[in-house]
Amino acid sequence: MEINPVKGTHDIIGDEAEMYSFYEYDCRLMAELFGYKEIRTPIIEHTPLFLRSVGESSDIVTKEMYTFDDKGGRSLTLRPELTAGVMRSIVSNKLHANADLPLKYFYCGPCFRYERPQAGRYRQFHQFGVETVGVSSYLSDVEVIILGKRILESLGIDKVKVLINSLGDEESREAYRKALKEYFAKHIDKMCGDCKRRFEINPLRILDCKVPEDQEFIAGAPKMKDYLSDAAKLYMDNVEEALRKAGIDFEVDDNLVRGLDYYTGVVFEYHMEDDDIGAIGAGGHYKNLLKEVGGPDLEGVGLSFGLERLHYVFTKYHEERPQSGPDFYLMPMNDEAVDLAFSLADILRSNGFAAEMNYEPKSFKSSFKIAERKRSKFAIIIGEDEIAKKQITVKNLKTQEQSSVNTDDMLMVLRSMLEEYIQAQNVEEAEVK
Amino acid sequence: MEINPVKGTHDIIGDEAEMYSFYEYDCRLMAELFGYKEIRTPIIEHTPLFLRSVGESSDIVTKEMYTFDDKGGRSLTLRPELTAGVMRSIVSNKLHANADLPLKYFYCGPCFRYERPQAGRYRQFHQFGVETVGVSSYLSDVEVIILGKRILESLGIDKVKVLINSLGDEESREAYRKALKEYFAKHIDKMCGDCKRRFEINPLRILDCKVPEDQEFIAGAPKMKDYLSDAAKLYMDNVEEALRKAGIDFEVDDNLVRGLDYYTGVVFEYHMEDDDIGAIGAGGHYKNLLKEVGGPDLEGVGLSFGLERLHYVFTKYHEERPQSGPDFYLMPMNDEAVDLAFSLADILRSNGFAAEMNYEPKSFKSSFKIAERKRSKFAIIIGEDEIAKKQITVKNLKTQEQSSVNTDDMLMVLRSMLEEYIQAQNVEEAEVK
Repeated sequence: MEINPVKGTHDIIGDEAEMYSFYEYDCRLMAELFGYKEIRTPIIEHTPLFLRSVGESSDIVTKEMYTFDDKGGRSLTLRPELTAGVMRSIVSNKLHANADLPLKYFYCGPCFRYERPQAGRYRQFHQFGVETVGVSSYLSDVEVIILGKRILESLGIDKVKVLINSLGDEESREAYRKALKEYFAKHIDKMCGDCKRRFEINPLRILDCKVPEDQEFIAGAPKMKDYLSDAAKLYMDNVEEALRKAGIDFEVDDNLVRGLDYYTGVVFEYHMEDDDIGAIGAGGHYKNLLKEVGGPDLEGVGLSFGLERLHYVFTKYHEERPQSGPDFYLMPMNDEAVDLAFSLADILRSNGFAAEMNYEPKSFKSSFKIAERKRSKFAIIIGEDEIAKKQITVKNLKTQEQSSVNTDDMLMVLRSMLEEYIQAQNVEEAEVK
Repeated sequence: MEINPVKGTHDIIGDEAEMYSFYEYDCRLMAELFGYKEIRTPIIEHTPLFLRSVGESSDIVTKEMYTFDDKGGRSLTLRPELTAGVMRSIVSNKLHANADLPLKYFYCGPCFRYERPQAGRYRQFHQFGVETVGVSSYLSDVEVIILGKRILESLGIDKVKVLINSLGDEESREAYRKALKEYFAKHIDKMCGDCKRRFEINPLRILDCKVPEDQEFIAGAPKMKDYLSDAAKLYMDNVEEALRKAGIDFEVDDNLVRGLDYYTGVVFEYHMEDDDIGAIGAGGHYKNLLKEVGGPDLEGVGLSFGLERLHYVFTKYHEERPQSGPDFYLMPMNDEAVDLAFSLADILRSNGFAAEMNYEPKSFKSSFKIAERKRSKFAIIIGEDEIAKKQITVKNLKTQEQSSVNTDDMLMVLRSMLEEYIQAQNVEEAEVK
């Protein structure tokens, strides 16, 4: 039997899973401070949702979707991103009709794209993101850009530059599309098959092409900024000014288009200042997306981070954070002690302490080795002597100090020992800094 | 376009999502106190994994799996449960070779079964669970049963009874299987098609049959308990005694078999005492599962809760817990105030306060209505007067007390106001109890 995970998927285990939970917790907390509420949409959606939202000309839809028929003959797709599902959910649940606008939701969960697996790229990957829907002010765009920056800062990822660009309003895009079509008409015969298709459906997508031979044609193409309408220019100016006021470093990048069809207006990406590892997060404004999936005419702006990408950046630029272990490791030295240890472990856990134990008697030496590997703070030894005296022997595994504790006062004494341990650890960490 | 979620899936939004996060947080915390580490396995797995683990005779495999071919021609399945993936992950990552046994992992995430949708049953549902692998003592079984009970208790779900049964060891099962086969041979002609198939592959599964016409034959079938070997009986006795010592109420239920082929030995379910809503959590011991998916010969025991089921029980038996809202709702009264409010919101959020605002000036009346609907603790009013005096007006939305605060001391004053608010709220809640 094939014992490996499906190609392009990965297991996240133990200490690494703890890191992912830490990123998620941090992202959630920050989004909540910004007034976002959680939304959880299903992993499977009707396929047409993504054709209508992500777009029929996007690489995602044309090449990368996990699409299949269920037993009832419905065409289902594993979501390649989360924004489309959030929009669908707003419409299905009429959320726009039952709450004050803008709606503000955050999400966190797995997405699926059938991409060529490569370093840091997975077919099942995980996104955290937010959507603000029913936007009436450029300040919502700015707020989302700030939120992304604050999330990274709170993770200690601070050497970040924000790239922004405007894809313009409909008027600007129509003018630009026309200019691109005219320009590429002269070159499209020599360009790749994908570009020929893009030329028909959405010439803007040609700018995303990665085929080396096509780059010379793309380099000479007209630039969006020369086709922005006055309204689109003013909007972008307002966004830039508000970002400056908020102290957000940013650069305007003409070449920034996003790989999803639904973006209009302001788009943005977060990059590391001195490291060309690509975007660690990105987002943008969308004017027509909600309407496109059957909802009312409300504009929105969203942002998403890839957790795999955050993990890559975090572990590259930071000392590993201290990993957790149990508070107490119980070491019964004989069979009678095993039963006692089992009862004590239950009492400790019921009182909020993390406790682990040997399920069968082991030697001192191997017991201490296990406790150490599990990063336990204390060892609790229970042997013949201890049982006779109704005591336990408690050893601080950092200082190696050891003392006897009556089982009757156990909870109180262990609690104060643990507090002391944590205090000493905090002092030590403060000294290191 | 179809704007509903896929049949049998559901959106979890806002306050309800907050409840799910609360259950997950509680389950995680309790599992961590018991020494479990997190494991996250992919949602898609190679189909044979589930044939080998969940079992070719189970309803899940024969009727309920979302199975499809990916673009590379691999047969993939959306996991119908999480234990199989955890076992596969242990083998792929050789976790058994690199850590002390037993391995202890908890998991949390979506599963998929193509079932007939009905109240509280979804095609995408969510499970939290644990697996202990490399078990050398019945105490691991007991520990898992206790953990489930403690999780429910910590959620305030305490009128719970635990049902347990033993499916016996291989010797017992072989004897029992033979007895069943002999017994059903006389009746199988009159039984349903599923049962005819089960009779060939795994006669034990016949006991799961829900077809009314088959029940008379099933009622007269031999009972597992009469075929338990001495070793299996002793093991079950030990488990029962340890549960009694730990103060866990339980009943032995002869008819308890689980719908998964991999269980052997002790199996258990959690039910509400006075409510026949079915199992809210369940688990059991498995002897051969890890070996079956290509790993070493290690026994395990696991447990899982359905989050949808927990949510059903929690909301049925508990007052809704207080739902969160922002700490401060900023109400700018003119355009200049909008910019100021936007800056103040950023400062508040950067200092750990949850802040929300109007993005455009609105009347007092409608602003306060929004703040109330959002359950904000305080309103912050910024108008012409306030800007002139470099002040903000802060109103406690519970007591209706109002005061002016200089923007320079804002953080300090707001922090102490919020602390007072929370203290008053705690006192109030304590009085209610």
